[in-house]
Amino acid sequence: MKQYFKVDEWRIIEEGFNPHFNKVAESVFSLGNGRMGGRANFEEAYSGETLQGNYVAGVYYPDKTRVGWWKNGYPEYFAKVLNAANWIGIDVSLNGEQLDLAKCKVLNFRRELNMKEGYLKRNFRAVTATGKEVEVESIRINSLADDEAGAISYSIKPVNFGGYIKLTPSIDGDVVNKDANYDEKFWEEVSKHTWNDGGVLQMRTKKTGFEVATGMKYHVSVDGEPEHIEAEPVTREKYIGTEIRMEIKQGQRVTLCKYAANLSSQNHPADEMMGLTQEFLERICHKGFDAMLAEQAAAWVEKWKQNDIIIEGDAAAQQGIRFNIFQLNQTYTGEDDRLNIGPKGFTGEKYGGSTYWDTEAYCVPFYLATAPQKVSRNLLLYRYKQLGKAIENAKLLGFKDGAALYPMVTMDGTECHNEWEITFEEIHRNGAIAFAIFNYVRYTGDEQYLADYGLEVLIAISRFWAQRVNWSAQRQKYVMLGVTGPNEYENNVNNNWYTNTIAVWCMRYTLDVIGKVKSADLAKYSELKYRIGFKEEAETAHFRDIIEKMYYPYDDNLKIFLQQDNYLDKEQTLVKDLSASDRPLVQKWSWDRILRSPFIKQADVLQGLYFFEDEYDIDTIRRNYDFYEPRTVHESSLSPCVHSIIAAKLGDIERAYQFYLRTSRLDIDDYNNDTEDGCHITSMAGTWMSVVEGFGGMRVKDGMLSFDPMLPAEWKALSFKVGFRGALLNVEISKQSVVIKTDSEEAIRLKVNGSEVSVSSEASLDLER
Amino acid sequence: MKQYFKVDEWRIIEEGFNPHFNKVAESVFSLGNGRMGGRANFEEAYSGETLQGNYVAGVYYPDKTRVGWWKNGYPEYFAKVLNAANWIGIDVSLNGEQLDLAKCKVLNFRRELNMKEGYLKRNFRAVTATGKEVEVESIRINSLADDEAGAISYSIKPVNFGGYIKLTPSIDGDVVNKDANYDEKFWEEVSKHTWNDGGVLQMRTKKTGFEVATGMKYHVSVDGEPEHIEAEPVTREKYIGTEIRMEIKQGQRVTLCKYAANLSSQNHPADEMMGLTQEFLERICHKGFDAMLAEQAAAWVEKWKQNDIIIEGDAAAQQGIRFNIFQLNQTYTGEDDRLNIGPKGFTGEKYGGSTYWDTEAYCVPFYLATAPQKVSRNLLLYRYKQLGKAIENAKLLGFKDGAALYPMVTMDGTECHNEWEITFEEIHRNGAIAFAIFNYVRYTGDEQYLADYGLEVLIAISRFWAQRVNWSAQRQKYVMLGVTGPNEYENNVNNNWYTNTIAVWCMRYTLDVIGKVKSADLAKYSELKYRIGFKEEAETAHFRDIIEKMYYPYDDNLKIFLQQDNYLDKEQTLVKDLSASDRPLVQKWSWDRILRSPFIKQADVLQGLYFFEDEYDIDTIRRNYDFYEPRTVHESSLSPCVHSIIAAKLGDIERAYQFYLRTSRLDIDDYNNDTEDGCHITSMAGTWMSVVEGFGGMRVKDGMLSFDPMLPAEWKALSFKVGFRGALLNVEISKQSVVIKTDSEEAIRLKVNGSEVSVSSEASLDLER
Repeated sequence: MKQYFKVDEWRIIEEGFNPHFNKVAESVFSLGNGRMGGRANFEEAYSGETLQGNYVAGVYYPDKTRVGWWKNGYPEYFAKVLNAANWIGIDVSLNGEQLDLAKCKVLNFRRELNMKEGYLKRNFRAVTATGKEVEVESIRINSLADDEAGAISYSIKPVNFGGYIKLTPSIDGDVVNKDANYDEKFWEEVSKHTWNDGGVLQMRTKKTGFEVATGMKYHVSVDGEPEHIEAEPVTREKYIGTEIRMEIKQGQRVTLCKYAANLSSQNHPADEMMGLTQEFLERICHKGFDAMLAEQAAAWVEKWKQNDIIIEGDAAAQQGIRFNIFQLNQTYTGEDDRLNIGPKGFTGEKYGGSTYWDTEAYCVPFYLATAPQKVSRNLLLYRYKQLGKAIENAKLLGFKDGAALYPMVTMDGTECHNEWEITFEEIHRNGAIAFAIFNYVRYTGDEQYLADYGLEVLIAISRFWAQRVNWSAQRQKYVMLGVTGPNEYENNVNNNWYTNTIAVWCMRYTLDVIGKVKSADLAKYSELKYRIGFKEEAETAHFRDIIEKMYYPYDDNLKIFLQQDNYLDKEQTLVKDLSASDRPLVQKWSWDRILRSPFIKQADVLQGLYFFEDEYDIDTIRRNYDFYEPRTVHESSLSPCVHSIIAAKLGDIERAYQFYLRTSRLDIDDYNNDTEDGCHITSMAGTWMSVVEGFGGMRVKDGMLSFDPMLPAEWKALSFKVGFRGALLNVEISKQSVVIKTDSEEAIRLKVNGSEVSVSSEASLDLER
Repeated sequence: MKQYFKVDEWRIIEEGFNPHFNKVAESVFSLGNGRMGGRANFEEAYSGETLQGNYVAGVYYPDKTRVGWWKNGYPEYFAKVLNAANWIGIDVSLNGEQLDLAKCKVLNFRRELNMKEGYLKRNFRAVTATGKEVEVESIRINSLADDEAGAISYSIKPVNFGGYIKLTPSIDGDVVNKDANYDEKFWEEVSKHTWNDGGVLQMRTKKTGFEVATGMKYHVSVDGEPEHIEAEPVTREKYIGTEIRMEIKQGQRVTLCKYAANLSSQNHPADEMMGLTQEFLERICHKGFDAMLAEQAAAWVEKWKQNDIIIEGDAAAQQGIRFNIFQLNQTYTGEDDRLNIGPKGFTGEKYGGSTYWDTEAYCVPFYLATAPQKVSRNLLLYRYKQLGKAIENAKLLGFKDGAALYPMVTMDGTECHNEWEITFEEIHRNGAIAFAIFNYVRYTGDEQYLADYGLEVLIAISRFWAQRVNWSAQRQKYVMLGVTGPNEYENNVNNNWYTNTIAVWCMRYTLDVIGKVKSADLAKYSELKYRIGFKEEAETAHFRDIIEKMYYPYDDNLKIFLQQDNYLDKEQTLVKDLSASDRPLVQKWSWDRILRSPFIKQADVLQGLYFFEDEYDIDTIRRNYDFYEPRTVHESSLSPCVHSIIAAKLGDIERAYQFYLRTSRLDIDDYNNDTEDGCHITSMAGTWMSVVEGFGGMRVKDGMLSFDPMLPAEWKALSFKVGFRGALLNVEISKQSVVIKTDSEEAIRLKVNGSEVSVSSEASLDLER
């Protein structure tokens, strides 16, 4: 665990210039507003190690699949998150010498991500090769208030010289994706227009034809006084810039405020975007940088009101959780049901596609509790709208009659993955999508969703399971062969307990919802039945038969569920027996060795016990946890949070805390040596879960919230906010007490430590622990 | 099954011009002489569909690996068979119009591969777009007598016009591999030299630095009379040609004899090759085309004397087996222990590398019986020399202490494959390499080989197995997890019966050989023990423990060996239940569906019963055959021959015959729709096995040959030749009798139908059946 960044409750701070750590810092300091975002690249030229990244939500490119050996069923193309036009560039030339930190002696350097107010600030003082010393400060935002806008205030002061300074703000569309399969460029220029203090560059993606107009406008001031300086536009293919030359004295400070806009044809008519962008730029430029910064702070204050978590007595833990909440809010606002939560958000381009089962398993609970209901509803609708493609996807793999297999990774519903053991076999993702429907309805009480959308998805998923199992004559049970469970360190196994369990759960829930919808709205149900050709009697009988006769691997001696049929044939070594040089396994061991080892990448049986905890007694959960935890290497970012929640439930608070630290500071501390590719956005929702569900012990049962809180020894107090059915609750847990407050005038019934209590704005709760 | 080519006992004949079938014909009509070879591309320009291919044995290129998702342990580069300079080109221009069959009206077209005498002949009559009718005949050989030489006689007659004809014989080194991973060209030019009647082009492969000098020289005659015509060399990057212009009258026949040489730096000093090639060309050109053709016929007559098989009463079967024997002899002569038998030989470039376990399992038996002992010994030595790399390969995968895992595919000992389920898990290949040692010694009696080379390989392989198994506490047995058996339609299975069986056999045989070598040559044994750090006591004790406590999956009800632990959990449908639209599965079904189906690509349990038939009683073999045969789809070319041999052994002669036809005419009839990529060379050895071991019932036991012959109803008689320990036997089987003759003066003891008999040149055998 590196401790590179300074611990601070509201900020991430980097001090000192460490080029080898730059890509990690670029990820951690990323900015986004749900609509656009990017890595913390420098404004001025930088020839050192960097991963340039600017992203526009929902804009993707179907890159041609690259494989070693083609397997029938692989998608021919798959959607990649696109690196879009770079709008932050401000090239600096000092008496003809380009400012480039890689070529300077850097006297001091500081970056700060202010999470409370949502801006990135960078200061440095450096001496160029020819000895010119400058002092630079830049402040950058991706505006929440104007989510198509970004702004930068960039000021520079020559410390030991005077002379000509040239600043060249630019929009550069000549960018590449580092992970392009065939070194292809994905954008082509549509048009560009420049004027003295700015310009617009409109680009179009190949194949998908998304158009994005990226524009800029600027102000210059010297020592705080606005200056009108003659500037010269420079353009080339896919690039616009403006060269601003001025003479400046030693010690004077020049400040360039650069306003940028990113308009996408998803939201505007493509042929009007040049004009619209120009108008938009006029507007924000008129508003001014300081006003934008103030708006930004206000918008973030509003966000934090809804979902801040306060940990007292443990600044590192506090910083960790705030960083996670901050990044989640930067990534997805829930305004747009065409969007989803990419595993790297706006912090990197790794992994094609933007939607994994992470969304349903980890992000939905976060947004359910911290955002308006429509946000999680939009996440569900996203899948509903892709149902047709999920059915097509299943058809490609030989399924029929409306069975749906949702893709492992997707942008538009099409599968974006091509490893057979994952693409075709990690089918439990279908279960998570069904579970999210259940979870949403459980939390919100919105049963109408089931009739309108949910049931259609549930039937399609249950149809898939019903075809995917087969009858084993020798066991006289249904079995599910050839799957990959959540633990991707086993592939093509038989009867993964988690998958079998969630499959049966899906069918059971589907039957339940059929009953509900039938009695609530028979006409709607009949319409659906007719539309999807649902043969109720035969199909539900088949579901029931499978529910009744499913096989689950179980060991009678250990009294645990088996991760898969042959798990106990493995040599039963433990994680503690591994040497440091073996870790992480995925980088040190060959794949076959990992596969036949007992080591578990992420919660698998435990994921099932987490989802369905009410169906198992505490001893069962404990036995399984005691067995699987010592075998789990947590090489997935999604793993520690589930272990943390279960550990908390079992009262193993010290371990729950260790897991929490690991998940919450995963990126800040670059735990898995891969933060340079981007942050682990979806697992951040898992971190939130480990606080609220783990230490807060929050559950929803029978339409009621319950809390069974416990605090790690290191924490003095914990407080968090959750929204529930229109009310906002503030839960404050200390060593001595649990205090719950709400803005709701109506009394809200809930359970604390098993006892039913009620709370309202009139009467807050204050219980001893 | 297509019946495109004409049935003929000694020839493959194509009649009529069918461009859509051209790539298949190019494969089938390929020529080779063990040193060089190529596809039956046209000499003149052809803009239609074609796969150009000329290959030089042993010349390869380590292409950069291409994968979708990198797995730790994959090789960074892997060796590809290289498409080399095209030496057959003779461009034809008729009054300025290029002759190109794709642009002609073809009046007639015929290709004939004469297997008896080893040449390819092509005749056609065609009318160009402007109405010029020509008659063309070409005859081409890759000389067996001069294995660095090829020659072409190309004659052309203008039928309805006179005027200028331009012939441009050329050497074109500007070629590509169709399967290059990154569209890279693999050759660079070293130098070139041209003169009036020819030239030499020397090329070098990138990275590997192989140099090949390809030269040509020609004669021209008109109506049989030599003509001296002024010609003009034309050269460009990686290309040399000579333009020969002449005026010719209607009805005159111009004949160009083109002599080509291919000298490789593997066999000659690179810096002398320009001169050597020129001298070589002088020599063969002086010899002349007719003499070369006569030498070629003589050399082939000699080959056929050693290994012809005669089937009476079934011309299609006869043609099939001769085609197989012909191609095997074209591919590998056994002269050079650096070479091996690529799966496509000189008929295509598909699959990187040249050596698979096919060599040991299928080709070694063929060469043992049909070629001098040194040929199969060279095949064994090839692996011995690569032992170091096999140990390194195992180390990469986490094995230690001298354990060896031979690569799945290789050219120089380095792994050339990158699918984890094959590369890392299809480890039974190690067993085939050990088995070939056993087989070689059993056949030849050359026990000295064990002390000199064999034991070292055996110990390294046994060490691998000893580390690859693990102790299953729940079974109290050793198990082998995560393997792919010969049936590649199951991946990452546990306890593949074949792999467990051959692993234990390897260890048992190793113990046996240790005993033999110790008593034969203790000093040599001690030297080996010391050199490889063999801890005899501990390691052999470990081998013995595994031999004793290995787990083999078996079903008590069916009394069959299970292909793997969970085979019977699969839905037990049969091949006959599949519809035509499902076949071949590999093209119609997604990979996961294939994996969880019961369908078997190729002999798996049956491969083991074939190898180790003496260890199982006939009822066991029959039960397993009856169970697995109906589940086998034979989508590997290596499958039907094993089924054919077992079917023959079980007396199921009609099915044995059907399997035989399928294997022997696989390429001629393009059974699997993939002959266009090249012929299935290694499976051709399997075809030979199905005749000699299947219908001939030949076995070797206790240093003695035995025969249990049986004939398909369709055959009047079968005769084949096998060499055994210095003697050549001719076995003639008819409905009534078995006649065995030999050239050996000493009496040879052998068994026929279980009875011991003897045969010598004095007294041939003539037994009633």
